[in-house]
Amino acid sequence: MPAKRLAANTPSERILGIDPGSLTTGWGVVDVSGNQLSHVAHGTIATAAVQNQAQRLGRIFHGIQDVMRRYSPNVMSLEKVFFARNAQSALKLGQARGVALLAAAERAIAVSEYSANEIKIAVVGYGHATKPQMQKMVTALLCLNGELRADAADAVAAAICHAHRQAFQSRLAQAAGGRVKVVRWRDYRPAAQK
Amino acid sequence: MPAKRLAANTPSERILGIDPGSLTTGWGVVDVSGNQLSHVAHGTIATAAVQNQAQRLGRIFHGIQDVMRRYSPNVMSLEKVFFARNAQSALKLGQARGVALLAAAERAIAVSEYSANEIKIAVVGYGHATKPQMQKMVTALLCLNGELRADAADAVAAAICHAHRQAFQSRLAQAAGGRVKVVRWRDYRPAAQK
Repeated sequence: MPAKRLAANTPSERILGIDPGSLTTGWGVVDVSGNQLSHVAHGTIATAAVQNQAQRLGRIFHGIQDVMRRYSPNVMSLEKVFFARNAQSALKLGQARGVALLAAAERAIAVSEYSANEIKIAVVGYGHATKPQMQKMVTALLCLNGELRADAADAVAAAICHAHRQAFQSRLAQAAGGRVKVVRWRDYRPAAQK
Repeated sequence: MPAKRLAANTPSERILGIDPGSLTTGWGVVDVSGNQLSHVAHGTIATAAVQNQAQRLGRIFHGIQDVMRRYSPNVMSLEKVFFARNAQSALKLGQARGVALLAAAERAIAVSEYSANEIKIAVVGYGHATKPQMQKMVTALLCLNGELRADAADAVAAAICHAHRQAFQSRLAQAAGGRVKVVRWRDYRPAAQK
């Protein structure tokens, strides 16, 4: 199900997708209104030139705060992390992630997290999509001209995934209020046990 | 070499030791002046009751900022992390660490990091000291009454390690300026090769 076909009653939201990293943090802002998904802005916060790790985190934090001031998003969306190459890379990613989450808390906006699989399925329709596939699909979905940097594409993809999930929730609510009964797994019992 | 015997010309400093954690962050403030090491304050920032992880990071950040406002430290000292149980725990620790480092960057104070071994050697004189040994030694070194919580003890230990390292650097500088020639390994050549 391609991401651009959203349910007509999806609530209007401005979503900030973030792809945190100790050297480069990608960001992308996407608007979702009704069944329309539109690109607002995207970019990266580069910190490789800063030697001191505390100052590097400061640059990420202020960079995200600056994006928030400029575009006033309602929600932040980012990828959940389950694996890492080693403890050091998990720790460095955690530090960048920590200041990104803090920026959301400081502005009191909600944070949604999605697994890499959920994001790939929302954007490409396939959980094992490659980076170039993701970049191409994000560019096509938002009718962007030119190439999108991988970090920014990942951030925009996280935002698209949130929009998609919201549309799905709206449809579920619609179904629950109408003819279709939504059965959760925990409410389910085989007939013999009832 | 016990930590309290510092070189007489160790510069005066107020050191904030931090032991970051996603559920409890320990902190301890220690003054070092000449050859005197003295306890100023210590405590913990508890975040277990906060469900939302972004808000939890906000509490750690503001808790550390509050301690900094109250005690005006010149330097932050914390443990370097090399290993973690798994990617998830490294990530959570990284997030808490990220906001602690950010608090230092926001106040423009220097950050010093020491390995667990360096901290244990500075406090107990033994790199494989246990937690209770560390707690007892920190309590004894700073002439504290009553028990010290493990998180606060770890934070104070990081601060003591920094004081100790500063004293060692002062002695080295003294030696370099005086009679004793300090030979670095990279300057060393066996006599036959000279």
